Amino acid sequence: MEATLHPIDLLIEDVHLATMAEATEPYGAIRDGALAVADGVIAWIGPRTAVPGELRRTARRRLSGGGMWVTPGLIDCHTHLVFGGHRADEFEARLKGVRYEEIARAGGGIRATVRATREADDDVLRAAGRARLRGMREHGLTTVEIKSGYGLTTEHELRMLRVARNLEEDTDVTVITTLLALHALPDEFAHRREAYVELVCREMIPLAAREGLASAVDAFCESIAFTPDECARAFAEATRHGLEVRVHADQLADGGGAALAARFGARSADHLEYTSEAGVRAMARAGTTAVLLPGAYHVLGADRTPPVELFRVLGVPMAVGTDFNPGSSPVCQPLLAMHLACVHFRLTPEEALAGMTRHAARVLDLEAAGILRPGARADLALWEVETPAELAYWIGANPCRGVIRAGATNDPRLSSLLRDV
Amino acid sequence: MEATLHPIDLLIEDVHLATMAEATEPYGAIRDGALAVADGVIAWIGPRTAVPGELRRTARRRLSGGGMWVTPGLIDCHTHLVFGGHRADEFEARLKGVRYEEIARAGGGIRATVRATREADDDVLRAAGRARLRGMREHGLTTVEIKSGYGLTTEHELRMLRVARNLEEDTDVTVITTLLALHALPDEFAHRREAYVELVCREMIPLAAREGLASAVDAFCESIAFTPDECARAFAEATRHGLEVRVHADQLADGGGAALAARFGARSADHLEYTSEAGVRAMARAGTTAVLLPGAYHVLGADRTPPVELFRVLGVPMAVGTDFNPGSSPVCQPLLAMHLACVHFRLTPEEALAGMTRHAARVLDLEAAGILRPGARADLALWEVETPAELAYWIGANPCRGVIRAGATNDPRLSSLLRDV
Repeated sequence: MEATLHPIDLLIEDVHLATMAEATEPYGAIRDGALAVADGVIAWIGPRTAVPGELRRTARRRLSGGGMWVTPGLIDCHTHLVFGGHRADEFEARLKGVRYEEIARAGGGIRATVRATREADDDVLRAAGRARLRGMREHGLTTVEIKSGYGLTTEHELRMLRVARNLEEDTDVTVITTLLALHALPDEFAHRREAYVELVCREMIPLAAREGLASAVDAFCESIAFTPDECARAFAEATRHGLEVRVHADQLADGGGAALAARFGARSADHLEYTSEAGVRAMARAGTTAVLLPGAYHVLGADRTPPVELFRVLGVPMAVGTDFNPGSSPVCQPLLAMHLACVHFRLTPEEALAGMTRHAARVLDLEAAGILRPGARADLALWEVETPAELAYWIGANPCRGVIRAGATNDPRLSSLLRDV
Repeated sequence: MEATLHPIDLLIEDVHLATMAEATEPYGAIRDGALAVADGVIAWIGPRTAVPGELRRTARRRLSGGGMWVTPGLIDCHTHLVFGGHRADEFEARLKGVRYEEIARAGGGIRATVRATREADDDVLRAAGRARLRGMREHGLTTVEIKSGYGLTTEHELRMLRVARNLEEDTDVTVITTLLALHALPDEFAHRREAYVELVCREMIPLAAREGLASAVDAFCESIAFTPDECARAFAEATRHGLEVRVHADQLADGGGAALAARFGARSADHLEYTSEAGVRAMARAGTTAVLLPGAYHVLGADRTPPVELFRVLGVPMAVGTDFNPGSSPVCQPLLAMHLACVHFRLTPEEALAGMTRHAARVLDLEAAGILRPGARADLALWEVETPAELAYWIGANPCRGVIRAGATNDPRLSSLLRDV
């Protein structure tokens, strides 16, 4: 809590802080706190009564929060939010009793989105992504991970990653990209699985790495998608190119995905409804974070929940993501993913918020985000709530009153609270 | 589809219409339709190519919808959205493993909201209600029902109804009010159940009727609340005073609530998770609408769903409500209630939308609402979707681009589409 030598760009007072630091107070809370920003970074944080006089004297702008809560800006570490079309018709067909197999035979499922994504030009993809991401920013998001996986050719996978990257400029949300070429076997490679995996390993991963288009490689390790061996080939290639590894694991059956993730020191294993105790233990040893995706569980009407209690006992950090995608999880708001994690997986609101801040930052290797502390990037969300538990409690409310990214903001909701000194 | 003699105030074109009329087309759809409004009422509706020249000539304002869908303005026929405080702490406590009995012993549950509501002055209640209702209007709502039930004294029950009524002026949403004095036994009457029922029947119902503060009387018929006999006394009194009857029925057990509703020709029986086949048959005979409230099912983690298939087979109309309340259903958006009705109760998106339009209007005795047809009040919602199924599909998106109430609008989202002629 030392004062910085830099001049203070922004001093925030009259707020409660949910720092999300591991502390004795729930939510790492500092009631009636203050927070000073210099050069986009948190320079000082503590109780208002302890603000050093120097900070007050040098602050150029002040924000008086009227008793609002401040949390780290929300971080959604698992989305597929760049895609063409939607699958509302499929949602409707299933509710009318059409079976998934029939939908798949008629060209539905992921393949429908692959077609729509390939057909959409960059502008269309970007406009749709922008609208989605702006909607999430309205609800407190400052960082998002976006996966490819609806292109499934070198050209279209890289195009998806470029479109995703460009959304940062459009939305003022930090975008982290992940290559998920092993999402589904494209029709062109039906009966030529090996050739597709080869293409991913020899061409897509090296190109994505060389062009700096992705930070990580993800794969859908499931009987309906890719085998652990196929995924392992891609992960080895990813590691060779300095990319991080993530795994869609054990969503529909225990396919050893969690253990595979651990073997490659993956940053995360995601879904995990069917992960065995051995898998959880392997994750704990490897330091792999569990990413819980309650949206897909909810929409698919699944009946088995991830081993949350075991994650707690063995100290595996739990992140929470929207899994925003047009098929199994059209969840457009981070707060609703937190809510669903509470109702379906029995996370506490504090765990859910840690899952969208501290632990999500860990998944994305953002050491300086997800916690409010000196030295962390000043990515903040302001909330008109009496307790942070409200963030996971209301269903469809938007208590967000503004976001600040790297200490700066053009959020019109905050303008009446800001004052130049 | 006759043209009116009145001058046309508003002509809407370049839209698709989900009329929700019972028709062969799903959603009663008219693609590339047009709709003319005169004196706040739909004067003409049909395909754009059939718009009579007279309508075009006399239209004072025109709205070009750019291919959006128009539905009846959404109608939420079951809410408790005027209340003091919130119960996020209880939500949190339950997720930390505190049992409901402990929470209740510590003064939690409905009693906590009764305390907070009594303590809140009119301005506080009204400001909170206004914010909630404006949020719902942003998501397409034009009519809402609001119940009392957190006052439980004559003074506070009537005050809640007045506050609710005043919200219409604040929000431009039509407000229908219901007296739910038989919501919980107030602490002051512990061990004096009869005296409380007597107070409700002798004082609250007559006063609410005389002052025109409520259109209906509702009661929570459940073993933890009031017996069928107690409810029946209140319903008889309601009928005597010309008020409609509604019933919170069979949510936690089959307590004969649906049959009771039928006996009094109730407009609706609501919840109905445990309703027996005999109860459904009685509802069908009485013309009582089933109001499905998936929010409470969702939050309480219930495992028994209402007999939806039986409602279909026996022709009992199904409405859908948010049940917006701070305990079992903090659901703030009509679209999310529709979504939950699909995912949890397996309604189709079309049934869910009919439940928030046509059938909800039936519950509230609004003959001229909930369907787009000549003579109906021009309460409309405009949506940026490709198919109405999207309204129940996205989780937390807001595709609403504006609402029109009785043919008029001050919705800033529509200003760029409107043109004075």
